[in-house]
Amino acid sequence: MHHIKNDLLLRTIKGERTDRKPVWLMRQAGRILPQYRSLREKLRDFKELVETPELACEVTLQPVDELGVDAAIIFSDILVISEAMGLPYEMAEKRGPYFPKTIETMRDVQQLRIANGEEDIAYTINAIRLTKAALNFQIPLIGFAGCPWTLFAYMVEGSGSKTFSKAKKMLFVDPTLSHALLQKITDSTISYLKAQVKAGADVIQVFDSWAGILGPKEYAEFSLPYIRQICEAITEVPVTVFAKGAFFALQDIGQLPCATVGLDWNMDPQKSREQIGNNKTLQGNLDPCVLYANHATIQAQTQKMLTDFVLRATLLTLGMAYTPTRHSTVLNVLLIP
Amino acid sequence: MHHIKNDLLLRTIKGERTDRKPVWLMRQAGRILPQYRSLREKLRDFKELVETPELACEVTLQPVDELGVDAAIIFSDILVISEAMGLPYEMAEKRGPYFPKTIETMRDVQQLRIANGEEDIAYTINAIRLTKAALNFQIPLIGFAGCPWTLFAYMVEGSGSKTFSKAKKMLFVDPTLSHALLQKITDSTISYLKAQVKAGADVIQVFDSWAGILGPKEYAEFSLPYIRQICEAITEVPVTVFAKGAFFALQDIGQLPCATVGLDWNMDPQKSREQIGNNKTLQGNLDPCVLYANHATIQAQTQKMLTDFVLRATLLTLGMAYTPTRHSTVLNVLLIP
Repeated sequence: MHHIKNDLLLRTIKGERTDRKPVWLMRQAGRILPQYRSLREKLRDFKELVETPELACEVTLQPVDELGVDAAIIFSDILVISEAMGLPYEMAEKRGPYFPKTIETMRDVQQLRIANGEEDIAYTINAIRLTKAALNFQIPLIGFAGCPWTLFAYMVEGSGSKTFSKAKKMLFVDPTLSHALLQKITDSTISYLKAQVKAGADVIQVFDSWAGILGPKEYAEFSLPYIRQICEAITEVPVTVFAKGAFFALQDIGQLPCATVGLDWNMDPQKSREQIGNNKTLQGNLDPCVLYANHATIQAQTQKMLTDFVLRATLLTLGMAYTPTRHSTVLNVLLIP
Repeated sequence: MHHIKNDLLLRTIKGERTDRKPVWLMRQAGRILPQYRSLREKLRDFKELVETPELACEVTLQPVDELGVDAAIIFSDILVISEAMGLPYEMAEKRGPYFPKTIETMRDVQQLRIANGEEDIAYTINAIRLTKAALNFQIPLIGFAGCPWTLFAYMVEGSGSKTFSKAKKMLFVDPTLSHALLQKITDSTISYLKAQVKAGADVIQVFDSWAGILGPKEYAEFSLPYIRQICEAITEVPVTVFAKGAFFALQDIGQLPCATVGLDWNMDPQKSREQIGNNKTLQGNLDPCVLYANHATIQAQTQKMLTDFVLRATLLTLGMAYTPTRHSTVLNVLLIP
């Protein structure tokens, strides 16, 4: 196995103390960069970018030198799994994802197939191979997937939503169907993530973007067991679990067999550490809207974040010679226990 | 002062132990009821309903007998204050509120006036007078307002948003302007709530609908101090503070001079009680999506909620002879300390 030159991220995940904290930004590959926007303008749609390995690779690499980040994250979309299972989606400009057909009955669930990651999502797997070759072991590559509950939410609701009430209704009205669908998504996700690792992903992050709309009991029943299955299946590389809004589940998340837990900006680092325990690396949590402010404010807020994580202050070097245009950019700073 | 016949709510707020827990539903007056929908169809728009005292009164009364609730809540909209301050809004069908002009500069803030609740929002004050007369002291009437941060979010963003990144950007980029606007909203809100109480509101609830998008530090700086001002100003009747998503602030909210704290369905009752302390009444937190399920599930989930609040099981009588069509209906059960 080749040694990765900048291994700050990998060593931090293992719990080693490093000279400085590794930095990457959520959605660093994408609309925040002018070179992304000019490439995107030439294309039919967002999905063309996701489904063309050479383009997905190019976009993944764009922020690496421009921002000086310590990891690349493969450019893709969490909904590729749904499509690979037989439920296609469209990505409407500014409106977000839209599913022409949604899951309503057990028959709908039965008609879905369990995706074979290697074959059914070959475009992303190939993009990972190309990106690994291009990175030439300079920095690690992060692979990712959505968590089963988050995919379930889209596949039942049919689009983004403030409340996902249709998806939540399904949990209360038909728990049997819900579990059947969640299991099928989980099996597909494990196949997909294993293919990502085989293709070269050095770290896996799973995103539970809609964790925060569930109550604690529903989260324990309909999300955590499936995340656990994924963590137990992906043993080759470290896994990061980022459950947005699931402050109420941090104690349980601390018991998952994952290496790192991602916090959002609502979560207090010290209180989160108490709940998660001492054997996970924590991934930090700058409010993405801070990036709209001037450099002095960004620096001060980042400094404050580091202090919150009870570390001796180490000023971060953030290569931010750009104006963020994407609100959901999150500065992730990985911190050792 | 007249004695209100069904005083379950008022006694519970005072911390008295009652034979059963009082029940009211968030948005009980509105789209969940067929008689509301048929009235609404005949009108020009939503604002006609809000701005016509006789109609607002009629809609407020609709759920009282139909659902058998223990309190009425005046039918209005949190954005009436913004309009009274000089920033008009439109309520587009299915799209939600929209402000043609938003607050961008200090000059914009200076041009806003501090609303006089009695005069500038006379329609809601008159609706309260009519409703009080019609209720004839059978059950109490809840008055309400949005919290300053939530109104700020709409007035800067211009509409609803998943992230309110424009509003949050303002906090980081121009805290001075932000505080000036928040203070002006607070002064207007206090004037409006005092007029509501004078007109007959027996309880006041303030809603911080967008609390959950702020980080703990921003919430402590930009929201809590203004809620405190409101609680300190409204001394004639008990005040309920409901800060949706502000799990991180429950300890501070427990220190506010309010009588009741509302919990959302993400918040665990026992953990919340520990943080809030023992001298507040807690307002419960059934997930509104539970109301989509059948009666047996609704009953079981309500029972579970009551058990969570560490009470001897008292089965609630829920007069729910209707199909909820509105996702954000919340079953509020007030619980004594």
